Amino acid sequence: MFIHHVYFWLKNKDSKEDKEALLQGLQTLRQIEPKILLHMGVPAETSRDVIDGSYTFSELFLFENAEDQQAYQVHPIHQQFIKDCAHLWEKVVVYDSVNA
Amino acid sequence: MFIHHVYFWLKNKDSKEDKEALLQGLQTLRQIEPKILLHMGVPAETSRDVIDGSYTFSELFLFENAEDQQAYQVHPIHQQFIKDCAHLWEKVVVYDSVNA
Repeated sequence: MFIHHVYFWLKNKDSKEDKEALLQGLQTLRQIEPKILLHMGVPAETSRDVIDGSYTFSELFLFENAEDQQAYQVHPIHQQFIKDCAHLWEKVVVYDSVNA
Repeated sequence: MFIHHVYFWLKNKDSKEDKEALLQGLQTLRQIEPKILLHMGVPAETSRDVIDGSYTFSELFLFENAEDQQAYQVHPIHQQFIKDCAHLWEKVVVYDSVNA
């Protein structure tokens, strides 16, 4: 399995419009195949020292393997999403993981 | 769905023993139910500016809901894992996400 987890920090945190625009952009990624699972998240209400709940949206992809993740990276819908939405975020952090 | 994603940075990065001890500790968490999925990861070979591949292990739990995640937090096996292994890591970052 290949886990691709992306966390987005919005530039204008308090802009409902920007938040909605980024979420709509993220939703376009649902069309991309093959994947095992895609989950769009927002921070949970949990709160402990080790928890980072400062991000705006998370995007979790489970892929069968590294090749499927690479195909996603270059997929036209993903490329279009970056073109349309990159101006909305101030920070993105990606964690890619494979089986331990 | 409740996504609980934890990233561990080992204190002694180059210690094979510490790495093995942490991985063995993580494996004990597999016994904990209920959960939808548990994935133990290591950084993939991908490399871009936005990718943080500096952690040693990742632990991804998919839970049905926040209550199941909370039950996991207080589960004796999880508590034992923290007792046994906390001395091995220098940093832990947790991202908890619920449906956007």
